[in-house]
Amino acid sequence: MSIFVKPIMRLVNEFSKLPGVGKRTATRYAYKVIEMTDADVESLILAIRDVKENVHYCDACGNFTEKDTCEICTTRSENIICVVKDPKDVATIEKMQTYRGVYHVLHGTINPLANISPNDIKIRELLARIKDTTEEVIIALSPDVEGDATSMYINRLLKPLGVKVTRLAQGISIGQDIEFADEVTLAKAMIDRKEL
Amino acid sequence: MSIFVKPIMRLVNEFSKLPGVGKRTATRYAYKVIEMTDADVESLILAIRDVKENVHYCDACGNFTEKDTCEICTTRSENIICVVKDPKDVATIEKMQTYRGVYHVLHGTINPLANISPNDIKIRELLARIKDTTEEVIIALSPDVEGDATSMYINRLLKPLGVKVTRLAQGISIGQDIEFADEVTLAKAMIDRKEL
Repeated sequence: MSIFVKPIMRLVNEFSKLPGVGKRTATRYAYKVIEMTDADVESLILAIRDVKENVHYCDACGNFTEKDTCEICTTRSENIICVVKDPKDVATIEKMQTYRGVYHVLHGTINPLANISPNDIKIRELLARIKDTTEEVIIALSPDVEGDATSMYINRLLKPLGVKVTRLAQGISIGQDIEFADEVTLAKAMIDRKEL
Repeated sequence: MSIFVKPIMRLVNEFSKLPGVGKRTATRYAYKVIEMTDADVESLILAIRDVKENVHYCDACGNFTEKDTCEICTTRSENIICVVKDPKDVATIEKMQTYRGVYHVLHGTINPLANISPNDIKIRELLARIKDTTEEVIIALSPDVEGDATSMYINRLLKPLGVKVTRLAQGISIGQDIEFADEVTLAKAMIDRKEL
């Protein structure tokens, strides 16, 4: 006999597919579902279905939207484009509430080891968005090997078009003690030091 | 404008109701749902609905089951009853694969501070299960204030009926270094020391 009855085992299995969820956490979630009211379970199911049916990629920037073109693309100037890897990065930057340009979601970064080439991510779509009015392309990719490679690749494509390409500053985090900064970050912060 | 489109916000909100899930984790789950295949989303929804519709408490022991009486209660001798707080504890003990008796789920422990009295948990139902053939009641409640109070209460009720009442041994964990055992556990292990 198995430890759990079949419906519980099945739900544990389904919850385990969520990112970072192991059997133990999935079991806690399954038990919670059993104890939820019928109305709460229905609204969870409706919310899952709603997201799956009504959320898709924006025609222009590749971010998630309910419409054809997302609210950011329809309401803001396209002169400044911020390039990010995933839709979740759009949410992260929006949280600052200071950036007023549009976004372009690459849906990945160049990674030869994982067989992801420039053609597998939305770089062609980014090029198609560059117009005479484009003032700046801000690359907001993580400072790792893939992010660096993708940034360089995009820079090489856009520079000949006369577009200003920038990348988020790398250095010591605000509030971080220098003692605890890793050497690579510290070296980078030293090279990029700013005159006061 | 909000950072997320409405369906995402709604699902993040729903996922946040799961135990230990904050906004950030809920957001990761919601993004995962968007990227799942339609079939995967459907099977998640079906599993949630299945658990909610078909899993309920066993008539006899209070554990989760699909039937009226759970498989453990119908297939095992009722002479030994293991008393636990929650259905998840049944799964924990079953994992050992050595216990062959039945269970009794209290669905809580006595806790005057949270206004949970003996009448609020399934103690009356436990008493009703005690027969002449009952050999032993094993109390498998956590060794905390509520577990201790509940154990003592049950023991006081069952002793006059001539039932043997035992409780899981408390002491140092197997493989744990004595250096890292807390003083209370160590003191308890000292008192309960066993002759070799």
